[in-house]
Amino acid sequence: MIQPFDDIYFMKKALQEAQSAYDKGEVPVGAIITVQNKVIARTHNLTEMLNDVTAHAEMQAITAAANFLGGKYLNECTLYVTLEPCQMCGGALFWSQIGKIVYGARDEQRGCITLGTKLHPKTKMVGGILAEECSEILKRFFIEKRNLN
Amino acid sequence: MIQPFDDIYFMKKALQEAQSAYDKGEVPVGAIITVQNKVIARTHNLTEMLNDVTAHAEMQAITAAANFLGGKYLNECTLYVTLEPCQMCGGALFWSQIGKIVYGARDEQRGCITLGTKLHPKTKMVGGILAEECSEILKRFFIEKRNLN
Repeated sequence: MIQPFDDIYFMKKALQEAQSAYDKGEVPVGAIITVQNKVIARTHNLTEMLNDVTAHAEMQAITAAANFLGGKYLNECTLYVTLEPCQMCGGALFWSQIGKIVYGARDEQRGCITLGTKLHPKTKMVGGILAEECSEILKRFFIEKRNLN
Repeated sequence: MIQPFDDIYFMKKALQEAQSAYDKGEVPVGAIITVQNKVIARTHNLTEMLNDVTAHAEMQAITAAANFLGGKYLNECTLYVTLEPCQMCGGALFWSQIGKIVYGARDEQRGCITLGTKLHPKTKMVGGILAEECSEILKRFFIEKRNLN
């Protein structure tokens, strides 16, 4: 059977969110939360616009998904995010008890894997989905930013 | 010279916030952010009311302080929080580059010290200020909650 709703399908949507961030001059990271293959949250990094270090794509997605569901636990949900979550977002995902995390590019320096952030024991995590595209938009952003300064 | 604005003075204010959380049926943790001994944010845990695992006292305090200052970095600020920050809040404090963290009670199980959350290299942290009072209100909350269920 053809399965149109795979990880690549939803990561493409997260990448569209990253592009929206890029267009606003924000570090381009995008996130999607799904439940039973239905998108219930789509967000992107807004730290510059909101002047708020807590406004990462994942944080907003957790808040939006909980709001949609009317409950704060996301056990049945999957997060798609273009960049491996940081300690803050990993910590928030721990509290949310999210079912699954799918990330695109690794963040070797500040990602939750390198920094050993503890996830909920029931949370599965897979990475590397469209990693090249997810990484490329970040590289492009930082090169452009350097050239403007 | 008498110094009325010491860590105990501000931790008492954080404890008042914890009491506000308690009165609403929220896990009683309170936070204050100061700059040059002036309170610029006072918040308490609102995870139940907002149905949002990200609504810890510290997260709201970071957002409120940045909003007050008009900039997202809190290098000159001190956070007073009644309970040792978790991974999420520790991660947010990392991004905020906050100058100093003063906590009351240790969180041996889920605190950022036990879990090894990385703070900004310039952030100082001290703990144990009014630890007993900060811990007592939490114990009282959980005992009461158990008795109600």
